[in-house]
Amino acid sequence: MIYFNNDYSEGCHEKVLARLTKTNMEQTLGYGEDEYCAAAAELIRKKCGREDAAVHFLVGGTQANLTVIDAALRPHQGALGPDTAHINVHETGAVEATGHKVLWVPHQDGKITAGQVAQTVHAHRTNGATEHTVQPKLVYISNPTELGTLYSLAELEALSNTCHELGLYLFMDGARLGYGLAAKGNDVTLPDIARLCDVFYIGGTKVGALFGEAVVIMNPAIAEDFRYLIKQHGGMLAKGRLLGVQFQALLEDDLYFEIAAHADRLADRLREKLRSLHVPFLVESTTNQLFPILPDGVLERLSETYVFCEQERVDETHRAVRFCTSWATKEENVEQLCADLQRLLG
Amino acid sequence: MIYFNNDYSEGCHEKVLARLTKTNMEQTLGYGEDEYCAAAAELIRKKCGREDAAVHFLVGGTQANLTVIDAALRPHQGALGPDTAHINVHETGAVEATGHKVLWVPHQDGKITAGQVAQTVHAHRTNGATEHTVQPKLVYISNPTELGTLYSLAELEALSNTCHELGLYLFMDGARLGYGLAAKGNDVTLPDIARLCDVFYIGGTKVGALFGEAVVIMNPAIAEDFRYLIKQHGGMLAKGRLLGVQFQALLEDDLYFEIAAHADRLADRLREKLRSLHVPFLVESTTNQLFPILPDGVLERLSETYVFCEQERVDETHRAVRFCTSWATKEENVEQLCADLQRLLG
Amino acid sequence: MIYFNNDYSEGCHEKVLARLTKTNMEQTLGYGEDEYCAAAAELIRKKCGREDAAVHFLVGGTQANLTVIDAALRPHQGALGPDTAHINVHETGAVEATGHKVLWVPHQDGKITAGQVAQTVHAHRTNGATEHTVQPKLVYISNPTELGTLYSLAELEALSNTCHELGLYLFMDGARLGYGLAAKGNDVTLPDIARLCDVFYIGGTKVGALFGEAVVIMNPAIAEDFRYLIKQHGGMLAKGRLLGVQFQALLEDDLYFEIAAHADRLADRLREKLRSLHVPFLVESTTNQLFPILPDGVLERLSETYVFCEQERVDETHRAVRFCTSWATKEENVEQLCADLQRLLG
Amino acid sequence: MIYFNNDYSEGCHEKVLARLTKTNMEQTLGYGEDEYCAAAAELIRKKCGREDAAVHFLVGGTQANLTVIDAALRPHQGALGPDTAHINVHETGAVEATGHKVLWVPHQDGKITAGQVAQTVHAHRTNGATEHTVQPKLVYISNPTELGTLYSLAELEALSNTCHELGLYLFMDGARLGYGLAAKGNDVTLPDIARLCDVFYIGGTKVGALFGEAVVIMNPAIAEDFRYLIKQHGGMLAKGRLLGVQFQALLEDDLYFEIAAHADRLADRLREKLRSLHVPFLVESTTNQLFPILPDGVLERLSETYVFCEQERVDETHRAVRFCTSWATKEENVEQLCADLQRLLG
Repeated sequence: MIYFNNDYSEGCHEKVLARLTKTNMEQTLGYGEDEYCAAAAELIRKKCGREDAAVHFLVGGTQANLTVIDAALRPHQGALGPDTAHINVHETGAVEATGHKVLWVPHQDGKITAGQVAQTVHAHRTNGATEHTVQPKLVYISNPTELGTLYSLAELEALSNTCHELGLYLFMDGARLGYGLAAKGNDVTLPDIARLCDVFYIGGTKVGALFGEAVVIMNPAIAEDFRYLIKQHGGMLAKGRLLGVQFQALLEDDLYFEIAAHADRLADRLREKLRSLHVPFLVESTTNQLFPILPDGVLERLSETYVFCEQERVDETHRAVRFCTSWATKEENVEQLCADLQRLLG
Repeated sequence: MIYFNNDYSEGCHEKVLARLTKTNMEQTLGYGEDEYCAAAAELIRKKCGREDAAVHFLVGGTQANLTVIDAALRPHQGALGPDTAHINVHETGAVEATGHKVLWVPHQDGKITAGQVAQTVHAHRTNGATEHTVQPKLVYISNPTELGTLYSLAELEALSNTCHELGLYLFMDGARLGYGLAAKGNDVTLPDIARLCDVFYIGGTKVGALFGEAVVIMNPAIAEDFRYLIKQHGGMLAKGRLLGVQFQALLEDDLYFEIAAHADRLADRLREKLRSLHVPFLVESTTNQLFPILPDGVLERLSETYVFCEQERVDETHRAVRFCTSWATKEENVEQLCADLQRLLG
Repeated sequence: MIYFNNDYSEGCHEKVLARLTKTNMEQTLGYGEDEYCAAAAELIRKKCGREDAAVHFLVGGTQANLTVIDAALRPHQGALGPDTAHINVHETGAVEATGHKVLWVPHQDGKITAGQVAQTVHAHRTNGATEHTVQPKLVYISNPTELGTLYSLAELEALSNTCHELGLYLFMDGARLGYGLAAKGNDVTLPDIARLCDVFYIGGTKVGALFGEAVVIMNPAIAEDFRYLIKQHGGMLAKGRLLGVQFQALLEDDLYFEIAAHADRLADRLREKLRSLHVPFLVESTTNQLFPILPDGVLERLSETYVFCEQERVDETHRAVRFCTSWATKEENVEQLCADLQRLLG
Repeated sequence: MIYFNNDYSEGCHEKVLARLTKTNMEQTLGYGEDEYCAAAAELIRKKCGREDAAVHFLVGGTQANLTVIDAALRPHQGALGPDTAHINVHETGAVEATGHKVLWVPHQDGKITAGQVAQTVHAHRTNGATEHTVQPKLVYISNPTELGTLYSLAELEALSNTCHELGLYLFMDGARLGYGLAAKGNDVTLPDIARLCDVFYIGGTKVGALFGEAVVIMNPAIAEDFRYLIKQHGGMLAKGRLLGVQFQALLEDDLYFEIAAHADRLADRLREKLRSLHVPFLVESTTNQLFPILPDGVLERLSETYVFCEQERVDETHRAVRFCTSWATKEENVEQLCADLQRLLG
């Protein structure tokens, strides 16, 4: 079987593994206080163009989300995101387990707008029972979104401005950030994100690392005492250097962006093939996730050779599915899939 | 510098690394639902002699502790341990962050007794304001303890009987379990632990793995829906197979026990040397942690070559310190330390 | 001004006050362990026809909701209710503050159906990422609902059967239960509720008491150690007898039902008047809350004399508002309002 | 039987009851937004000499403690108090249920010193694993303490200075504050407390009210959005005016201080009698709680007529017990007790 079901089916990029192997028997301080973490953090600060960024390495996305949100909010405050937000639907109530309600507005292609944020906050502040409802304090977005779409720079600027005018934090879940930054048509850079967000993370787990997310905190109110929160939530790896070593390997020669571009290019190849066959999409994504709508019969035939994800039923004879490419996807597998699609749909 | 400060200064054992390398580009299911996790769990069930054990792999000790305790307790219940318990003093209130108070009794060499548990529970139940105080429901012990000591089988049987007579769970933190099982004089086996505890874990982070603790749950009340709790607390690794691969490598040919025995043997060598030099110990440990009491001047000289941990000041001219051996400790380093001790104290 | 804005604008019924006055200087045990609480609990068990019911008196509705839900759920479980549920929209995330997500389905006139519950649970159990989402474990309904509507016995039976087949608890928020039981057309009795729900409460705050909700727990799994949870959540009144005294006064001669019937009768009077004037309603309620849709101009005139609540804008010239009667509403005030409505709309 | 077991065995002072009765059928806004609460808050601000104080009325002590502490702390921070602190031993882990560890130091007569606070904070900040342990951020004291003792102005000044130099909040639980302010030898005033504490409360439940604690917040960081926290923790009484009415009645003509002085005077009478009979005390209290150490035989005889609390066994034939006077204690009952003591011990 050929796996297109997600972007975390393999281990890590060979260069990352080589670095882990090379450093394996070195003795370092524990808990992320080693030189590899320091060097990786410095690399990230440089790429963000911000020496004042606080950088912390966490093991996974849910851990990063709950730790950041818990660090940012007082007890009566909530995180506002799209209904499709990962924290809302796919983390077993991890944010609620820290005591905070997840508030939401309807998504458009996985995204929310500055206008929605403003309207929600306005409604909260003027509803006559303000303190009987949860106070929106942090806006959670994913970029790329769960639907593979991207925020434009203009959208992000608007969100950031609205958040800051209203006294809210802007938090970007960047579990797939590499695939976003490398995507065709993307006009957002790491320095933009560092300028516009209060906190965000650069995802490693889905982009070439064994595991790991680099949390970048721009707002000192969130950064204060952040290591306590990592430890309290069970996120402080004894051998923290494993995260530093991996991010150093990924970022040193821009390996991270190169392998993300590889995945995006293969996704584009597949996307163009599907378009040429007049296959509609559930959503117009531009990154490594595609959501074509295909006839049940075709999907049945494809499932003999390929693993992919069910997304949703569209009508009685069609389903939207998800195909993912990744840093590890082989070009020949994409070509084989394109050929099979041509045969089945052409 | 030569590091004796802890047992997590290096990466992982070479055989573990080899297995991670060999399997790196394989595609597997995520979130621990792969075949490596299944195989490692099966190995653990076999070594425990209990096919009914539920086995889950978590990334680290604090994560394991908070997830198990949160799974086991209702809101008004607390975890009872020695004052020195890791959950009481070294996890930034991780257990309290899940809503539960850590209750404690004074330790004896890092351990607590069945009598102390019985007395605490009796005092709670008869104090006339029972529901105004936290209900003890789970007993937390570490084996080896934070002071390197071990529970005897008789002590463990007594604790287990008392817990079960009183309706409490017994939870063993086995972050250094390998070093305990391999220690001279130890009379407790994995099947004993599985028989006597409701839940325990086999620590990998400190015994040859990059990271990872294998949580073994014997009591179905704690095991129920445990994967939800792992996910909620941010402990579900996307590439869960990394844990399965490592534990399989460690347990397949009893590598885990072999490398633990190596560390214990080197600790014994150092312990005998110190004894022969009439050095007293803060506590009579038998595993890979030693707590000798040495003159300040000697410690100053040692610290030019060796890294070790401060434990506590004993009198105006003496301090207790911690020396740790590990799976990675080199025999020649121990010999060099013994020679230096002989020179300084002989 | 004449207040129709809610049912908690006054203190308590004169008979309740008389009883508080009469018992004021008596010395009793604290924390609800007095004879008044015992007697009131016994009265409630009798009226429910269930000697096995556990009865606890809490100060208010939010406190009752969060304490019951926290007592019932394990950490990964959530409470499922209508989107309009008080716990979802009007309690500042009190349930989330105990760590639990509030799940919801769209309401119909403030109610949810057995079918919706079954569908939600089925979707959760079969979604292929079950443990990545919150497990529905308790169904929260209000009766009367926030929109003044009532569950029929058949609807309640269906909900109860579905919950119990699926292993969920059924919890009825009865903050306005008296107004429901006394309403025209209601076919549900206290013994029905005790038979069909795992836990519910009989609201005092809105039905003649100064404050107080009588929580009735039928399911031993929720009842176990409930007093610990009351204390932990700050709900254990030192002078608990105040609650016992009030509920005894309310229930002894069915005062509770008599004063609720008074409110319902006045609501019916107002409802018929509005109907006779062809005023539409946002929802067809049958209890003490009415939601007429009136022209802005009429509302402006009414607001010179009456206090009422804004509910929602219906179109450019009409708004739905809420009028509430209560145990304290004076007949002449209702007649005056009817006369004014006739004048303005007739 | 005559009750000396606590100070909350009766209802409320007759003037409080009269005021509740008089205002009973008035219609007011709910949730503490009425004029009685406003007037009572203004009275408190005046008596504290601080127009900038934020005043909120809560139902009980545990509720006040958990709400204040949760409002004040970030997740990784803890509350530091004496081992005997009510939050540490008598609130079923209410503070831990909000996620925060209660830290403690040994008490001296129920009190802690500025030196202990400084030492604890210093130890935390220099222990080499700072972020692995809970950060002390708020100091919790009771005045009077659980042992009936009082902080002197000098002790309070020292505590306040130390807290503020170290960046900690100082929180005074004033559940029995009236009995402290009225005690012989007390040199602390309400304006002192307002000047020295970040937050404190004036207890009503034990000093003449049916229930209620007036929380006075001097530090804007804790005051911000405090009503959200009250609501979230289930502490927002629908008929909040009940609290305003009671505190207005208690404070208007200094009734609060007058009835507290009555209790203290009777306690002094009893204390002098015991001293004259050479009865030793567990602790030298000066307020309405006394802890005499008496022979078992005498206690047995006393228990035929009087209800009092067991405190602790002192030796094989003596126990320390607690006698409490209150606003409601009758002079003749104290005289009768003195006569009985004279007879038994004279």
